[in-house]
Amino acid sequence: MDLRERVDSSKENLLEELKEFLRMPSISARAGDEGGFRECAEWVRSKLEEAGAEARILETDGHPVVYAEIGSGEKTLLSYGHYDVQPPEPLELWESDPFEPTIRDGALYARGVADDKGDVMARIQALRLYQEEHGTLPFRLKFFIEGEEEIGSPNLAPFVRSNSKLLQADACLWEGSMKDEAGHPVIFCGTKGLAYVELRAHGASHDLHSMYGGIAPSPAWRLVQALRTIKDEHGEITLDGFEELIEPPSEKDLEAISRIPFDDAALRKSWGVEALDRYLTGEDALREMLLRPTANIAGIMSGYTGPGSKTIVPSEAFVKMDFRLVPGQSPGPVVELIRAHLKSRGFDDVEVVDLHGVEAAKTPVDSPVVRTSVETWRDLGREDAVVYPTIGGSGPTSLIATELGIPTVMTGNVAHAGSRIHSPNESARLEDYFEAIRYFTRFFERFQSGSARGGGGE
Amino acid sequence: MDLRERVDSSKENLLEELKEFLRMPSISARAGDEGGFRECAEWVRSKLEEAGAEARILETDGHPVVYAEIGSGEKTLLSYGHYDVQPPEPLELWESDPFEPTIRDGALYARGVADDKGDVMARIQALRLYQEEHGTLPFRLKFFIEGEEEIGSPNLAPFVRSNSKLLQADACLWEGSMKDEAGHPVIFCGTKGLAYVELRAHGASHDLHSMYGGIAPSPAWRLVQALRTIKDEHGEITLDGFEELIEPPSEKDLEAISRIPFDDAALRKSWGVEALDRYLTGEDALREMLLRPTANIAGIMSGYTGPGSKTIVPSEAFVKMDFRLVPGQSPGPVVELIRAHLKSRGFDDVEVVDLHGVEAAKTPVDSPVVRTSVETWRDLGREDAVVYPTIGGSGPTSLIATELGIPTVMTGNVAHAGSRIHSPNESARLEDYFEAIRYFTRFFERFQSGSARGGGGE
Repeated sequence: MDLRERVDSSKENLLEELKEFLRMPSISARAGDEGGFRECAEWVRSKLEEAGAEARILETDGHPVVYAEIGSGEKTLLSYGHYDVQPPEPLELWESDPFEPTIRDGALYARGVADDKGDVMARIQALRLYQEEHGTLPFRLKFFIEGEEEIGSPNLAPFVRSNSKLLQADACLWEGSMKDEAGHPVIFCGTKGLAYVELRAHGASHDLHSMYGGIAPSPAWRLVQALRTIKDEHGEITLDGFEELIEPPSEKDLEAISRIPFDDAALRKSWGVEALDRYLTGEDALREMLLRPTANIAGIMSGYTGPGSKTIVPSEAFVKMDFRLVPGQSPGPVVELIRAHLKSRGFDDVEVVDLHGVEAAKTPVDSPVVRTSVETWRDLGREDAVVYPTIGGSGPTSLIATELGIPTVMTGNVAHAGSRIHSPNESARLEDYFEAIRYFTRFFERFQSGSARGGGGE
Repeated sequence: MDLRERVDSSKENLLEELKEFLRMPSISARAGDEGGFRECAEWVRSKLEEAGAEARILETDGHPVVYAEIGSGEKTLLSYGHYDVQPPEPLELWESDPFEPTIRDGALYARGVADDKGDVMARIQALRLYQEEHGTLPFRLKFFIEGEEEIGSPNLAPFVRSNSKLLQADACLWEGSMKDEAGHPVIFCGTKGLAYVELRAHGASHDLHSMYGGIAPSPAWRLVQALRTIKDEHGEITLDGFEELIEPPSEKDLEAISRIPFDDAALRKSWGVEALDRYLTGEDALREMLLRPTANIAGIMSGYTGPGSKTIVPSEAFVKMDFRLVPGQSPGPVVELIRAHLKSRGFDDVEVVDLHGVEAAKTPVDSPVVRTSVETWRDLGREDAVVYPTIGGSGPTSLIATELGIPTVMTGNVAHAGSRIHSPNESARLEDYFEAIRYFTRFFERFQSGSARGGGGE
């Protein structure tokens, strides 16, 4: 019986197990344990134990981490995922109970099915299938499943730093990949960094009648004046020293990008816009999204914003900006650079509040784990896996990829571009779920044997 | 018995009558008649009738106007005021009931006492005192008292236009003057115009994950880019054709301004700022406030404005701007000019919504009614009245001053700079109230005799 037959013959049981996981509302944004956190973590631990791993709960200052090890050999693979989910709200937009998994049109609907419980479950089930086929795992596999990913992993950095030996590995399988709009499996080799700041300008101690508009300090205009020094009139970032930090992408990154199927017309259509920013198109847009930093305005606010007119000179103004960073640009130095930039232009009065920072992470597109990821898709008969040198978004990947120096790749997840991650009616296609189980089983075979073809074909 | 003695001897009655007026909560912002509007209008009408005038209620599409005429002669004086008041909220900040007038430390506290019921009452009482002293009024005096000033006089323009003959006069006494911080009576000879617009920029059909920050259209940045064409980096307005419209101030306006005592240090202190906009000081600041147009940001909003960080590219952004206009600049053409300015710079996509417009109004500082206003203060022993060519704010003055061509002046009101108009604990000093009654009595004498000294001295 080949792998596909074995998965197909136990579909019911595999799904039932996933549904049990999905019924636990492990919403990390809810304070305390009302989300049934510990029960959910314990359940995951027990599943890993059933699969033969030595599994335990590791405490953090927040929700616990589930950690497990199994197998032995020269090589070690780390698997990262999370058992927490986003809040389901707005509930009224769900077509079925977010915590009562429901199958419709070949897809399973439930909060967390695509992000990230389906992924976590598929990996554990793949581990069992591997052992049924091959017996003992001939490498060390470590599961590292956190419970705070959906609230920004606030306790992950200290956890990783104080458990750096425990987590050491030759490669890491991260969560967060998917199939794209056209159905191609996507492999991400990095994430952007992030410097999230708030610029604040202050005027009079109270809002003034706008009869004083010609002489009263205007924090809103002050911010506009500050912002005009951060981007020029063509929309290019003009922050002193920002560009200079960038480590240029490798030739292989550029090559990988040239192979990515990217349909900017479809993107424009889905956004309902006539043009992208700066009229970017095709590969230029893709390179901009993947390889270039950003200076985004996530929010701006001053004065009266209700209906109709009110005539005041507002006393306060702020702008929230997220700078997505590429390798070479660290959030701390970038915030300092923003401060220095504004100061040197006379904006000492504009306060720069550092709200949040994440490091960029990058695994070379030609590293063995990426090769293994692509070849595993080929094992499943898929020649169409697409390698992204990086993703436009950010995450705590750098803790593993950069701080621990472990080549890290996002591949094999059950999600697809239409999975409505974080939104009502989150779903995963059943065929993607069963394919993910087969994918991870084959990945374990390939990881064991380096990049050589392993196990039975399909 | 001279005028002061006559006022002093009936202080109790004069105050009681004012208090009766102040007890009526004629809040124009309240829908329908729950504010007891008609009763208040009827009460004012009856008071004018008691003073011998032919008084009536004139309907508008909103709250009614109280109109009255008395006296006969070659000259006609129009008196404009309003019987409606601002809402009293926040109530918890009032030290006494806003609609139960209370005397504390020589001042009367009540909503509307300084704006504008004290003013309206003082004029009616002055009319009675004039007649007691001199008999029949030897000129035509018209009272025009509206009920919607505090909600922007939405029905005033059609009312004035369809009653232009009724309202015709040689001069108009407008409401809205006051005593300044140092106690000098202030005479305003004009108001600025106003063009209130909202600029709106649109991006994707929904907020996007800011991983797309480098390629998604950003309405917030788009507005910043549009705004940077409206003011230069020094804070000077750079709107095409805006400056050219300005009718330069007269020599007499400049002379009047040079005589205004203006303490920019006190203003900065009261606002809690170290410097005025563009580091303006002294007479430069005063000229800017009184003679120059503005391009104020009254509000701006886009995206996420709550606590902490959220990483989105917002789909919408808007900025509310009020342009205070000076003679030569009309709101309609100014809005067209803003549209043309943005269009010629490629901002066709930025929507310009015309929210509200008011014309500037200007009466020459050397017109007879201004001279009469100053000389009336001298009659009361005050050599310190200050003539402002205009005020930084705007109002419907132009309907009378410009459209009907009636020289219009703001003088004699009971308010002072600390009256907390529109705020909790609105008040007028009793001495200012009785002085206002004497002022209007003397004004009627002076108006009758041209600019010559009239009536008994004090």
